[in-house]
Amino acid sequence: MSRSSSQLREFLYRNLEPSARPEGGLSLFNRVIVWLIVFAAVVAILETEETLRGTIPEVFWIAELFIVMVFSIEYLARVYAAGEDPRYSGLRGRLRFMKSWWAIVDLLAIVPFIVTGGAYNSFIIRLLKLLRLLRVARIGRFSQAWVSLTDAIYGRRFELALSGAVAFLIMLISSAFLYVLEGDAQPDAFGSIPRALWWSVATLTTVGYGDVTPVTALGRIFAGFTAIAGIGLIAMPTGILAAAFSEAMQNRKKLAKDDASANGDS
Amino acid sequence: MSRSSSQLREFLYRNLEPSARPEGGLSLFNRVIVWLIVFAAVVAILETEETLRGTIPEVFWIAELFIVMVFSIEYLARVYAAGEDPRYSGLRGRLRFMKSWWAIVDLLAIVPFIVTGGAYNSFIIRLLKLLRLLRVARIGRFSQAWVSLTDAIYGRRFELALSGAVAFLIMLISSAFLYVLEGDAQPDAFGSIPRALWWSVATLTTVGYGDVTPVTALGRIFAGFTAIAGIGLIAMPTGILAAAFSEAMQNRKKLAKDDASANGDS
Amino acid sequence: MSRSSSQLREFLYRNLEPSARPEGGLSLFNRVIVWLIVFAAVVAILETEETLRGTIPEVFWIAELFIVMVFSIEYLARVYAAGEDPRYSGLRGRLRFMKSWWAIVDLLAIVPFIVTGGAYNSFIIRLLKLLRLLRVARIGRFSQAWVSLTDAIYGRRFELALSGAVAFLIMLISSAFLYVLEGDAQPDAFGSIPRALWWSVATLTTVGYGDVTPVTALGRIFAGFTAIAGIGLIAMPTGILAAAFSEAMQNRKKLAKDDASANGDS
Amino acid sequence: MSRSSSQLREFLYRNLEPSARPEGGLSLFNRVIVWLIVFAAVVAILETEETLRGTIPEVFWIAELFIVMVFSIEYLARVYAAGEDPRYSGLRGRLRFMKSWWAIVDLLAIVPFIVTGGAYNSFIIRLLKLLRLLRVARIGRFSQAWVSLTDAIYGRRFELALSGAVAFLIMLISSAFLYVLEGDAQPDAFGSIPRALWWSVATLTTVGYGDVTPVTALGRIFAGFTAIAGIGLIAMPTGILAAAFSEAMQNRKKLAKDDASANGDS
Repeated sequence: MSRSSSQLREFLYRNLEPSARPEGGLSLFNRVIVWLIVFAAVVAILETEETLRGTIPEVFWIAELFIVMVFSIEYLARVYAAGEDPRYSGLRGRLRFMKSWWAIVDLLAIVPFIVTGGAYNSFIIRLLKLLRLLRVARIGRFSQAWVSLTDAIYGRRFELALSGAVAFLIMLISSAFLYVLEGDAQPDAFGSIPRALWWSVATLTTVGYGDVTPVTALGRIFAGFTAIAGIGLIAMPTGILAAAFSEAMQNRKKLAKDDASANGDS
Repeated sequence: MSRSSSQLREFLYRNLEPSARPEGGLSLFNRVIVWLIVFAAVVAILETEETLRGTIPEVFWIAELFIVMVFSIEYLARVYAAGEDPRYSGLRGRLRFMKSWWAIVDLLAIVPFIVTGGAYNSFIIRLLKLLRLLRVARIGRFSQAWVSLTDAIYGRRFELALSGAVAFLIMLISSAFLYVLEGDAQPDAFGSIPRALWWSVATLTTVGYGDVTPVTALGRIFAGFTAIAGIGLIAMPTGILAAAFSEAMQNRKKLAKDDASANGDS
Repeated sequence: MSRSSSQLREFLYRNLEPSARPEGGLSLFNRVIVWLIVFAAVVAILETEETLRGTIPEVFWIAELFIVMVFSIEYLARVYAAGEDPRYSGLRGRLRFMKSWWAIVDLLAIVPFIVTGGAYNSFIIRLLKLLRLLRVARIGRFSQAWVSLTDAIYGRRFELALSGAVAFLIMLISSAFLYVLEGDAQPDAFGSIPRALWWSVATLTTVGYGDVTPVTALGRIFAGFTAIAGIGLIAMPTGILAAAFSEAMQNRKKLAKDDASANGDS
Repeated sequence: MSRSSSQLREFLYRNLEPSARPEGGLSLFNRVIVWLIVFAAVVAILETEETLRGTIPEVFWIAELFIVMVFSIEYLARVYAAGEDPRYSGLRGRLRFMKSWWAIVDLLAIVPFIVTGGAYNSFIIRLLKLLRLLRVARIGRFSQAWVSLTDAIYGRRFELALSGAVAFLIMLISSAFLYVLEGDAQPDAFGSIPRALWWSVATLTTVGYGDVTPVTALGRIFAGFTAIAGIGLIAMPTGILAAAFSEAMQNRKKLAKDDASANGDS
């Protein structure tokens, strides 16, 4: 490999790979990419609105073309620069890099447009286009603090799952009761447990659409207890997370203190 | 008792009774049972949907038959194996075991099908069939962590009950006010305190179906205050639980630390 | 005063006044009164339902008569027994006792029935009858733990009031915006800020009746931000209360520990 | 400058500038201003209601005139008294003071009335009048405790922003799914992602208006998961804030303790 090519690769790697920056933060390249991802998501969202697409179709087409071109160049640059990482050096390493989670997301963000030629004419393409929303998920790649938040949730995953299971059980029981109490009065809404589940999930999460509500006295009494149980279902995970965040902060502070006293001793 | 019979009983006991496993976790037998309970619950739920039952009645019948057969064998095996526990040895011990809470639940999960012969033709049977949902509750039997969550709630049961009583009082007062303010304008919805309670519970739990809403200016002003009080009703138990979970974690950590320092001293 | 009369007064005082029991808890007398208050509240609530009152009017009348008689006797006994307390001894002391908050509530619980002779025929009596719900509030008198919960809230009263003021300000601002954005499209629902407040309070408390919703694009965008702000309005007081309860528990534990170590030193 | 003029300025400064009072709290002047701001906000809100303005237009006009006059005098007094502060002394200092945030708010509270002569006849004036609501925001100026609450939020701004971003992403994903699943059945409500966002924000914040709800089975299943995700979106910021408030209290207590022990040592 020539020297200038090696320098280019190193330059690209330093500017594209966040972990390769000793000074931390995002490089100008990556900041532009983040904003382009947000822009691409906005375009994809607005494009689904027929009244907008009908008025200015060429604007969307140009925006799409621009987005896909930049993302294609970025993808190729990333694959090329990945060689700087010993794990991904050589052709085989590049293939291994292309099979990593984020590389696949990057690829999926450009393939639909290239395959369909920017056309938009069937339900399948519609679904494929939605994959572009995954571009937004790539922003998470740059964030370090994300880890601390997910750690707190991960540390309490068992308690959260348990409270989720209790919630699910209460949902089933309340659906079963409403099915028995309201099934005859409103067969469309409560004629079976799966149907009653729609009401049950709306009530227990305290969303309460109101498109389906019990009308019999007994049904309303039981629905009231379900709504009250819904408060418990909100209180449980909130309380667990609050305790987890409190603990995580105290651990961090204690570590900082231990570090300080260790430095003070020496 | 012959030796082989004794060995079989011990084998069954070790595989069916979670507390009899020194290595912890669930045996293969119990894991299969857990999934079968989930499957049985799904079948019971889907069976209530007329459109499904009408299309594939024989599939449901076969599934029911299979579930009840396996659960019957499991029940007999459990009763037989219970003899390993000194408390339940002998015929009298087995009867005592059969009167325990979970053994009754196990029995109720099979009796409805056997009694009705799998038929499904009256409202009473409908109710009996719902008892099978209790099968799901049996999963709690296997979980150890359940205890730590319920302990935190139990430790704050008094504060939770008190905040529940305050919630109930606010519910009654807001119902009484809306009854006075809206009773004449909407006699169907607010013509008595019990009727106004339906609106009150939906508002205080922030479910807010919207099937019944005040229309007079004074009624809406008071309803607004009720809705704001609803935030307090959510904040109180959530705050109590958050504090309880925080405390439980600190206690656990302190115990671990005391253990460590006690070992360090010796 | 004769000796037997003095003994009766002391006996009554010890059985009626919770603070006069060195062993703590509620006396049999007071427990009966608590359940009678609950019963009286249930009667008052059910009596407002025309369909029930029309069917069994004499049952309600007898229940009312019984409740008022017992409460009258209880009231007289309390006034008489209050003489045991040095603050309330003598005729002047009794009058001072009768002017205390709970004695007035006790009196208001019996006066409406006696004044109207149990009749029920005008809107004013309706309102007077609702005062009987205050009987329920008397249960709070017996509770000691109530104090610990209110203390935590009182300790954070300023932060809670501040978050309430912020909530109120956001409510006004969102009402003003929706009035400007939706006022022309829906003059009935958003034609003035006071009208828009009904929508605003339902959205910010996440009740969301749905009887009034924005229909214009701009109105919906702003309504979305209002709904998201509603999450903050729930999170603020919940977080404040959670921290207050955590602190109260730690203080209690620290006090218990300090007591123990102080005893250990001596 | 004459002596009496200097004394007047000092007197005004001490009574208008909260930070100039060594004894803390609000002066009588400022307390009157606070109540006048509240009164002005109430007038501005009630004035938007056509039925009220039509009945008593002169009452509103007199109230407006009175409010603007007092606020004008207050504004001039503040600008004059600002000279006591070395930063704002002299004419140039006064101009600098007038460009400060709160001085602009004070000015905006009087300008609309003076410019339009108290008239009320176009949509633009309507918007200008709403600026008077900013008067309410001025109350925040007097509060010191405000700082402690905002500090806790500021300290966790990153975690809160992150949980907000996750919420936003879930909102987009659920909108995209509902658009695909319900778009054909209800083109008006789910015919594009921006349209589905209205449903999505109402569901994830657990507001649940119910003006737009999915009707297909698949749409309802996904909507159920969205509603459950909504609980997480409430639990996350609540948990973060609860932990932040807990930490802030412990820091305050620790500071107080350190102060006490430092004093004890000397």
